[in-house]
Amino acid sequence: MPHYLWKSMIGDFVFDQSFNIAARGKAEELKKKFPDASAELGPETERKILKALDDKKLYADFYSENLKLAKKAIRDSVKADNLIIQAVSSLDELDKSANIIVKRLREWYELYNPEFSNSIQSHEKFTELILSKSKKELLKQIGLKQEDVMGADLGEADLSQVMDLAKALSQLYALRKTTEKYIETIMKKEAPNVTVLAGATIGARLVAQAGSLQRMVEFPASTIQLLGAEKALFRHMKTGAKCPKFGLIYTHPMVMGASVKNKGKAARMLADKISIAAKVDYFKGEYMGDKLLKQLETKIGSLK
Amino acid sequence: MPHYLWKSMIGDFVFDQSFNIAARGKAEELKKKFPDASAELGPETERKILKALDDKKLYADFYSENLKLAKKAIRDSVKADNLIIQAVSSLDELDKSANIIVKRLREWYELYNPEFSNSIQSHEKFTELILSKSKKELLKQIGLKQEDVMGADLGEADLSQVMDLAKALSQLYALRKTTEKYIETIMKKEAPNVTVLAGATIGARLVAQAGSLQRMVEFPASTIQLLGAEKALFRHMKTGAKCPKFGLIYTHPMVMGASVKNKGKAARMLADKISIAAKVDYFKGEYMGDKLLKQLETKIGSLK
Repeated sequence: MPHYLWKSMIGDFVFDQSFNIAARGKAEELKKKFPDASAELGPETERKILKALDDKKLYADFYSENLKLAKKAIRDSVKADNLIIQAVSSLDELDKSANIIVKRLREWYELYNPEFSNSIQSHEKFTELILSKSKKELLKQIGLKQEDVMGADLGEADLSQVMDLAKALSQLYALRKTTEKYIETIMKKEAPNVTVLAGATIGARLVAQAGSLQRMVEFPASTIQLLGAEKALFRHMKTGAKCPKFGLIYTHPMVMGASVKNKGKAARMLADKISIAAKVDYFKGEYMGDKLLKQLETKIGSLK
Repeated sequence: MPHYLWKSMIGDFVFDQSFNIAARGKAEELKKKFPDASAELGPETERKILKALDDKKLYADFYSENLKLAKKAIRDSVKADNLIIQAVSSLDELDKSANIIVKRLREWYELYNPEFSNSIQSHEKFTELILSKSKKELLKQIGLKQEDVMGADLGEADLSQVMDLAKALSQLYALRKTTEKYIETIMKKEAPNVTVLAGATIGARLVAQAGSLQRMVEFPASTIQLLGAEKALFRHMKTGAKCPKFGLIYTHPMVMGASVKNKGKAARMLADKISIAAKVDYFKGEYMGDKLLKQLETKIGSLK
């Protein structure tokens, strides 16, 4: 009487001739117990076995095991890409938040010391200075005396509330810096070729806009050139307005530095090389960023 | 030969008969030197003196002295109102920033521990817990084991970046709390009657919307009732859409707690009392908040 050996994710089974379960366990042990059991099953036999497995208790086992596998698949699907996308989006949102808060800080602080706030453009520098120096010192720095100025004297509790806002803001600025550094580290590791060509932040933004490094690899270079300019592109396609020449890569120094009439060409050349670099990175090819960069510099340099 | 004594903000002057400056100094000293000098001048004499003062050097003196006075006036114009307005606007902006950041934090953290994030609604509680407990502890709290979940294991550097964002967020939440407390302190001091009726935050929002406590006092109660509902009010006036029944005071427990058909009435009664309270506060009248509150409670309680 031959037996059938059936391997499954909830353990292995031995069936007898009439497709009742004879034993359940691990294949090796079952093989010892049933040396006659055959694992080579024809489709007809398989169908019968599957029918025999159609049992409530077993179904529950399959269900829970399947769930575990699915969860593991999700767990394993988190790639460096996802982290890059989160970090670069976080960067943008930190900027947005800091901009909201700094406007309030300036307005509030200007009740106290308007001349100093007016004398300094950089928000970050401004925040740092008001936290580290007294009003008197700050006024001295811009050559004014206490009696010449328009700022009111605030009570200690009132002032400390403003300073707390400044502290929160300076922490956001600090976090922005570490996030940028983190993006650089992870980009250098995951996409060294793209990083050397596009820079860490632009590279990360491109990955985020594409959705993943894999999707970016599947794009033609012309799509990479326009990533981030979707609105203008669709306006062009719908209304016949001018076609955009660049998207996110607009802020790249090589595009920024090109003359107005060459900006589009420079963007195309840069996107070509980034496209190659992304493929090398995704398929874990040998590092060739420096070579690509050199080629690009020569090409853009020869634009007239 | 009589002299004229002329007092001005840049010092006092003695003029001789032909309106040349005979001396400049302080009035008392000048009077001793020129006992004949008269300070009672007719309009004709004054006109001549003013003309005599029309001198480049003196003009510069007047200009700088005037500037000082104007600056002092600005310095002195900063009232508690301004601080209330800044603080309550800051509150709104902290909320806005925290909302932007918490959305990112959730999405980012959910790569690591989605089940826990999903199990907890309150953003603040969520932030606090992920900062204070490990993934294992958090999973235990919701009755799950490490191998049953969908979250990926993140490297130390990757995780610490997420946690830094959580820290920044928790600091914003903390600042929000101290700002709220500060508003309460300053409102209780500056507008105790409004505070006991409307609550510190709604009261401060009303002051901010009106522009100052003084402007709020100048409003009729019906305007206070609709403060913050300007958009709906002008839509009503322009298009004949329904008139709004309440603005900022909508979130007041007495309005929130009223039945749908009585909400408008409750809002009107509350606005009436707030209007009285604001006047008492502005003109530094005696505290009568508790009395007003009691009257209001009786009135709103008798609504059917």
